[in-house]
Amino acid sequence: MQIDLNCDLGEAFGNYSFGGDNDIIPLITSANIACGFHAGDENVMNETIQLAKENNVGIGAHPGLPDLQGFGRRKMDIKPKEIYNLVVYQLGALNGFCKIHGARINHVKPHGALYNMGAKNKEIAQAIAQAVYDFDKSVVLVGLSNTLLISEAEALGLRTASEVFADRRYEDDGQLVSRQESDATITNTDEALQQVLKMVTENKVVSKNGKEIDLQADTICVHGDGAHALDFVTQIRKKLTKEGIDIQSL
Amino acid sequence: MQIDLNCDLGEAFGNYSFGGDNDIIPLITSANIACGFHAGDENVMNETIQLAKENNVGIGAHPGLPDLQGFGRRKMDIKPKEIYNLVVYQLGALNGFCKIHGARINHVKPHGALYNMGAKNKEIAQAIAQAVYDFDKSVVLVGLSNTLLISEAEALGLRTASEVFADRRYEDDGQLVSRQESDATITNTDEALQQVLKMVTENKVVSKNGKEIDLQADTICVHGDGAHALDFVTQIRKKLTKEGIDIQSL
Amino acid sequence: MQIDLNCDLGEAFGNYSFGGDNDIIPLITSANIACGFHAGDENVMNETIQLAKENNVGIGAHPGLPDLQGFGRRKMDIKPKEIYNLVVYQLGALNGFCKIHGARINHVKPHGALYNMGAKNKEIAQAIAQAVYDFDKSVVLVGLSNTLLISEAEALGLRTASEVFADRRYEDDGQLVSRQESDATITNTDEALQQVLKMVTENKVVSKNGKEIDLQADTICVHGDGAHALDFVTQIRKKLTKEGIDIQSL
Amino acid sequence: MQIDLNCDLGEAFGNYSFGGDNDIIPLITSANIACGFHAGDENVMNETIQLAKENNVGIGAHPGLPDLQGFGRRKMDIKPKEIYNLVVYQLGALNGFCKIHGARINHVKPHGALYNMGAKNKEIAQAIAQAVYDFDKSVVLVGLSNTLLISEAEALGLRTASEVFADRRYEDDGQLVSRQESDATITNTDEALQQVLKMVTENKVVSKNGKEIDLQADTICVHGDGAHALDFVTQIRKKLTKEGIDIQSL
Repeated sequence: MQIDLNCDLGEAFGNYSFGGDNDIIPLITSANIACGFHAGDENVMNETIQLAKENNVGIGAHPGLPDLQGFGRRKMDIKPKEIYNLVVYQLGALNGFCKIHGARINHVKPHGALYNMGAKNKEIAQAIAQAVYDFDKSVVLVGLSNTLLISEAEALGLRTASEVFADRRYEDDGQLVSRQESDATITNTDEALQQVLKMVTENKVVSKNGKEIDLQADTICVHGDGAHALDFVTQIRKKLTKEGIDIQSL
Repeated sequence: MQIDLNCDLGEAFGNYSFGGDNDIIPLITSANIACGFHAGDENVMNETIQLAKENNVGIGAHPGLPDLQGFGRRKMDIKPKEIYNLVVYQLGALNGFCKIHGARINHVKPHGALYNMGAKNKEIAQAIAQAVYDFDKSVVLVGLSNTLLISEAEALGLRTASEVFADRRYEDDGQLVSRQESDATITNTDEALQQVLKMVTENKVVSKNGKEIDLQADTICVHGDGAHALDFVTQIRKKLTKEGIDIQSL
Repeated sequence: MQIDLNCDLGEAFGNYSFGGDNDIIPLITSANIACGFHAGDENVMNETIQLAKENNVGIGAHPGLPDLQGFGRRKMDIKPKEIYNLVVYQLGALNGFCKIHGARINHVKPHGALYNMGAKNKEIAQAIAQAVYDFDKSVVLVGLSNTLLISEAEALGLRTASEVFADRRYEDDGQLVSRQESDATITNTDEALQQVLKMVTENKVVSKNGKEIDLQADTICVHGDGAHALDFVTQIRKKLTKEGIDIQSL
Repeated sequence: MQIDLNCDLGEAFGNYSFGGDNDIIPLITSANIACGFHAGDENVMNETIQLAKENNVGIGAHPGLPDLQGFGRRKMDIKPKEIYNLVVYQLGALNGFCKIHGARINHVKPHGALYNMGAKNKEIAQAIAQAVYDFDKSVVLVGLSNTLLISEAEALGLRTASEVFADRRYEDDGQLVSRQESDATITNTDEALQQVLKMVTENKVVSKNGKEIDLQADTICVHGDGAHALDFVTQIRKKLTKEGIDIQSL
């Protein structure tokens, strides 16, 4: 039994720092690296690919919407054909840095609003999946478990990894409870660890209404900003390891 | 005896059109395609790669400074390491579209201020050349004849193509007469055609002071905007063909 | 009886030209000037304010979403408070050029997606109106006739101008027929001129379903790109003048 | 005897925070607020104007080059006319937020590369000064003491404030020792405090070569990032107050 721990990295831009990449990277197995549209720039990307390589974590592209000010979190009405193109562009750009470091892109995880749009809109899910497929069909596409991004990618013949969240609550239909709602996150660490374990070992989660639902857990999303975040990831690792689950990249 | 005709393409951006790519492309053998920093965007790039492929012209990356407003023509104090990174990023991005079209980057020609900075500044010439080399050492680097960009690229082991200009006058040292000066360009078509012929067949040019100087002529820079431009390129082609010179990509 | 003719101007950016501002400006009475977010830049703005002043047309700010690539036409999920701020910023920036030219902002017309979002979303309509009001309560807010942008602005005590379209068809509820639909525009010039006349003299329009509906016609939106556009505006002017309607700015 | 303490504020952008504006603002008398070109955005500007107003510090515009990635620190070859326009644009934008808060722009201090270009290049100094003058001739222009920015502004009839640095060393000609050199900054706090006192009370400074030179000290540049920075500013205030010097805005 195995699981991957992924984290967004390389989100600094120019003079602006962001997150604690050096602290979190020893604790994860896959890095989602920003590609310059919603965060990151060419200097950050070069450093982050090098950091990922040195720490032997899986390198992933983390393409986002062209909205630095909004950090790629603001939904934009972009046509599927344009979504396709912006994914290809960002995969290509990150791949440039992989080439100079003798590395390769192992996975792609869309960022923020693009991730959410891909989860719920079929045409956008197809556009993202097709872009990844046309770019390199051996790359793994990471998406929210039980969503269109996963099913469309699989229909195309792409390998996928279903993502689950350690400290987010789920709706009865397997969607995440919206961050607008008060019970969106699990603040009790033990409860979160229990959720992680159940997802990884049983591919099930208990929804906010107490219903047990199915999901696929290939990779867990973790965060690197804040002392508590690092501690939480450390505890997840400990728990999983204790249960004999292998933590390794996709 | 052979020569290449290169032209900048794919310089539209979003809602803004630019140049007449469809008109000029049948007349050239190499396309320098903007990569989204000084011009072009992911949608334009996809279309332009396809256009270049359909017309069987050599595909080139045309990386520029991160200055859309200034069209990459404003010199910026950017460190060599950052120049290296922005070239890698742009090569990678364009390569993304090559990958989805089953094409490849044949050459790289820096744009505008980056081209000029690379011609005169050794560290920047090295940074550009190293970026191209690390990205793909089989790619040809195009630079102004007799400049540091060419010599540094060759020192590194890269293949180069020395660029000459049909309608620009040259200084005694082989540099172009600055556009600030009144005699920068040759307005008489016959005179320009004579200059082209001499450059291609003898690898020589007569400077503005009447001195005959050496240069290397591997590729001629042409422009596609304006009816006169198209006519001029047509005449260059006619002249060269009549003299038995083969017009083909790098 | 009087009416205003408004047109979007100053939409060039950097090296990119756009539209024929010099040709259309003698035919209009109000200019909506882009403010650098979706189009325009500081150099274009300075020239356009000067052009508007020389031609004695009403100067209007034309704020848009921060999306140059999408020309401000792509809807973005931006919070009302942020909408408020981006309107203030753009009004201020344009006002800077008014100050150096001894001119003033006479009206504000939101652009593209911002215009549409303000028409249909109450919070956004309020944010736009409040920004204009706080900036300068004597400025006229231009919005689509019969929409929230007009009603919210009036509720706040702002002067408004209801905009109508010469060559767009209307739904029964007074909204424009979406451009996605085949019958969105009126291509027959006489029919368009009849619609204009009815809107201006009766404040009524016949919907696509043949229903006569009320609207308020304070200003007509015209376009300056293309020879036909200029001819169309000329005919509108002729028709209105012949009917004794005064064409003058808001 | 009086002196102003100025600090750059409002340099966050979108999701990126920057500096500790809330901590430094009680210690200063003038705030230089970024205007969205090199840092800051419309949301940050609104908050920062409010913060400045609440803390009763002088509000200043801090216009910079259009280079967010380079934080406005990379020199760009921009024509004086374009410099003029980008200063007008940024003054206008900031003034928009002043208007909604019932505040006013008290001073203008160019940022980074623009500050340095204005100090050494006469045409650029004139362009900056003219922009400020045309926008509002009652505004104070802040520039490095003994430079063209000050003299050109004064020639135009603008009020100026000469800026000095507490912890930077000076050349014999009154210029700052370049940051490239090892002795650019004074690390000993007492020595820095002595320099401040001499500059404020005698309008003199001892150069790195031990030569006593004249300068005008109207305002001292301080920084807000880092615990040491806050402590240093606190000590400067204490020292100045003890010597009976009034700390107040321009």
